[in-house]
Amino acid sequence: MTDCQGDGEGASTPMELYERLGAQGDKVRSLKSAKAEKAEVDAAVQLLLKLKIDYKQMMGQDYKAGCPPSEEAAAPDNGPAAEGDEDTVDPWNVSTTNAKGVDYEKLIVKFGSSKIDKELVDRIEKVCGQKPHRFLRRGVFFSHRDMHQVLDAYEKHKSFYLYTGRGPSSEAMHVGHLIPFIFTKWLQDVFDIPLVIQLTDDEKYLWKDLTVEECHRFAIENAKDIIACGFDLNKTFIFSDLDYMGASPEFYRNVVKIQKHVTFNQVKGIFGFTDSDCIGKISFPAIQAAPSFSNSFPQIFGSRSDIQCLIPCAIDQDPYFRMTRDVAPRIGYPKPALLHSTFFPALQGAQTKMSASDANSSIFLTDTPKQIKNKINKHAFSGGKDTVEEHRKYGGNPDVDVSFMYLTFFLEDDEQLEKIRQDYTSGALLTGELKKILIETLQPMIAQHQERRKGVTEDIVKQFMTPRPLNFNL
Amino acid sequence: MTDCQGDGEGASTPMELYERLGAQGDKVRSLKSAKAEKAEVDAAVQLLLKLKIDYKQMMGQDYKAGCPPSEEAAAPDNGPAAEGDEDTVDPWNVSTTNAKGVDYEKLIVKFGSSKIDKELVDRIEKVCGQKPHRFLRRGVFFSHRDMHQVLDAYEKHKSFYLYTGRGPSSEAMHVGHLIPFIFTKWLQDVFDIPLVIQLTDDEKYLWKDLTVEECHRFAIENAKDIIACGFDLNKTFIFSDLDYMGASPEFYRNVVKIQKHVTFNQVKGIFGFTDSDCIGKISFPAIQAAPSFSNSFPQIFGSRSDIQCLIPCAIDQDPYFRMTRDVAPRIGYPKPALLHSTFFPALQGAQTKMSASDANSSIFLTDTPKQIKNKINKHAFSGGKDTVEEHRKYGGNPDVDVSFMYLTFFLEDDEQLEKIRQDYTSGALLTGELKKILIETLQPMIAQHQERRKGVTEDIVKQFMTPRPLNFNL
Repeated sequence: MTDCQGDGEGASTPMELYERLGAQGDKVRSLKSAKAEKAEVDAAVQLLLKLKIDYKQMMGQDYKAGCPPSEEAAAPDNGPAAEGDEDTVDPWNVSTTNAKGVDYEKLIVKFGSSKIDKELVDRIEKVCGQKPHRFLRRGVFFSHRDMHQVLDAYEKHKSFYLYTGRGPSSEAMHVGHLIPFIFTKWLQDVFDIPLVIQLTDDEKYLWKDLTVEECHRFAIENAKDIIACGFDLNKTFIFSDLDYMGASPEFYRNVVKIQKHVTFNQVKGIFGFTDSDCIGKISFPAIQAAPSFSNSFPQIFGSRSDIQCLIPCAIDQDPYFRMTRDVAPRIGYPKPALLHSTFFPALQGAQTKMSASDANSSIFLTDTPKQIKNKINKHAFSGGKDTVEEHRKYGGNPDVDVSFMYLTFFLEDDEQLEKIRQDYTSGALLTGELKKILIETLQPMIAQHQERRKGVTEDIVKQFMTPRPLNFNL
Repeated sequence: MTDCQGDGEGASTPMELYERLGAQGDKVRSLKSAKAEKAEVDAAVQLLLKLKIDYKQMMGQDYKAGCPPSEEAAAPDNGPAAEGDEDTVDPWNVSTTNAKGVDYEKLIVKFGSSKIDKELVDRIEKVCGQKPHRFLRRGVFFSHRDMHQVLDAYEKHKSFYLYTGRGPSSEAMHVGHLIPFIFTKWLQDVFDIPLVIQLTDDEKYLWKDLTVEECHRFAIENAKDIIACGFDLNKTFIFSDLDYMGASPEFYRNVVKIQKHVTFNQVKGIFGFTDSDCIGKISFPAIQAAPSFSNSFPQIFGSRSDIQCLIPCAIDQDPYFRMTRDVAPRIGYPKPALLHSTFFPALQGAQTKMSASDANSSIFLTDTPKQIKNKINKHAFSGGKDTVEEHRKYGGNPDVDVSFMYLTFFLEDDEQLEKIRQDYTSGALLTGELKKILIETLQPMIAQHQERRKGVTEDIVKQFMTPRPLNFNL
């Protein structure tokens, strides 16, 4: 149930639900055409989405205006998304019509990557000698390329390095932005390996209505949040493209090598660029590709170009690295391996990626305990029933409940999480109670992050961002 | 006359010439299809070209197979090129069907630049207080953009800087490659201003079947020849893109700024790129544009972005700077001014640009006195008549004679040059004698260049190529 929103009574038959959906759709349209207040429109849209999910849960198929439900079509449980439903996933767009979020099984097939199955998780545990991170245990990192090869080599004492990154489009980072960094820090710790972190301030300048100076400042501010995740200064190099491109001829040489081996036709196919795009965007993919090759960092790896790279990143970044893996053998370099994560859902639901420009779409790393509480209570999309009575009777749906999703990312205790899932599904746990658990999980986590970030001085940032040797044995 | 080639007797009527042309065309085709020796084919092609020029001179129009001459069409002098004849001039292709070379008057109209007229040459003389360089006196530098503006500012004690460059596609440079450098050195001397020289080794890597290392090595070797032109170490910075891009964040920032403000559609229109071109080529024009802005060189100009740039270059480079001038005001920088030179003709004739890959197409800076003599005697296309008798009677044509053209570039004495022109036109000077003057001009010039180049040590190259402050007052 959504105890923070008075969204009316439940519907007991498919036809009733169908009719309520039609009415709600009309209401949204009339509010929009009357230019009603944003909050009012948002509330109406959220109810509409919720009704659509209820309908799909009841009928096993999507609500479609003008197609009233027939008895034959009714299905008691949440069926698979209709065939032909295609999620959109690329570095600039992630969208799905499914409230559970993107269909990741389909994405694995579409992208040609491999599933991180129990066997691989067990193997990682065996090789690193540590309990797998909750992101592995729970399928947050769900897909990979060549991870077995990385482990084969590691077992033969041939090490690797990590590469991840962030596009600094604003000062404000939200909890979702931490996912790759939390996991990368764990990988760095358990495998004891060097790490490079790219801040693509040049990309943000090219894509956004921002100045070069703004993007560079965001890079420095974001670096502070990244450092606050606890990375080891002796093993981590963080760089802004705007700085490092102008500080490393070896990096630029790799960029040019990649740029020579990728045509406009290819980036058009991979990234959807058009003739109206600026030439900076068109050539940028080479800049995100270059850190995949160890000789881009001579201060760390000398002239060695043969050191395997492992890239933990959200699955939307995979197009860059499909391109990189295609180019690598043609310029004499090993292909980077990858570990892909799912998307962190917006508070409003898993249909979209979060937006750093909408303060209510997520929990920001600068939020106060009170803001965290209010945002979750007000905006976190609920998989609960409309009334306490119905919720107690039918139970909630944790698969579409954003508070529960957030707990799968941040609550360490597996047993506790499973109990929450069961209790919510049975109706024993109310949405308000679930939200309270999330609030009490995030408040101290964010407070601790803020405390650590305070300790990150300009000097520490400078140390992390200075090209220098790192301590490691390969 | 071409006293080094036994190309048969002259033709006295248009029809005779027409018929000889047809026969010679057949001969070329049969030699080619029989895969005859290159030297034999070349000789036949050269005679064919020569006959075509004779025909045009006699008839005032181009020879066209299947269209025998009519009396009405005959014209005694060399008429203008037929309407619709379009020269091709871009950074990778220069071609014309006219033996005198590209029609530069037309190019000024097509490119929208301004002619360097007598008034401008006189003004340059007045402002710098020196006799104008022979390249200005003789129209080698024939076109400009905003040169009056540069002089206006200079007169008000607002100085400017020079920018020129070279694409290092091989170790071997020929005399034609020196034209922009000889003239730039003169400008540096008479205006007492700083100069930056870009070696686009990244461009050559992207366009040619060469490795990054080869292109960089060619850049260093070419720098030695450039330095041997006599540039002032205290006022000159030479840089390889592969080095400087990785040594100057400010340079990269300007590259990205330019790349944000140019679309693929624009470079397609300006440079003829296609979807099959690599993304490196597509984004490269921004790298050639960036040195036009003074803050690309903070070691020289600090953070000042308002210092006017003047670019002396061959006219085929103008497309880069048309693009640059279009972008400049949109990113808050002054437009660079330009001085355009004509092309230096190949020994085989002015129809094409020289090729560094064909040793016989020009005089190389490494040629021995004997090689210079042999090349000129064997390969320099002659505007003379076929026999001494005819030459004495009708005179030669200096406008298509490559030896005479070379003298206009390298013989300093105006009166001597004019006398040569008159004597050759009247028939008093034979082709062999004209060639001898050129040989005796080039042999000491090249020998002196070689002597100076020997003195250019690796250490001197390093000094010129180290980013550093320069001595000047702006």
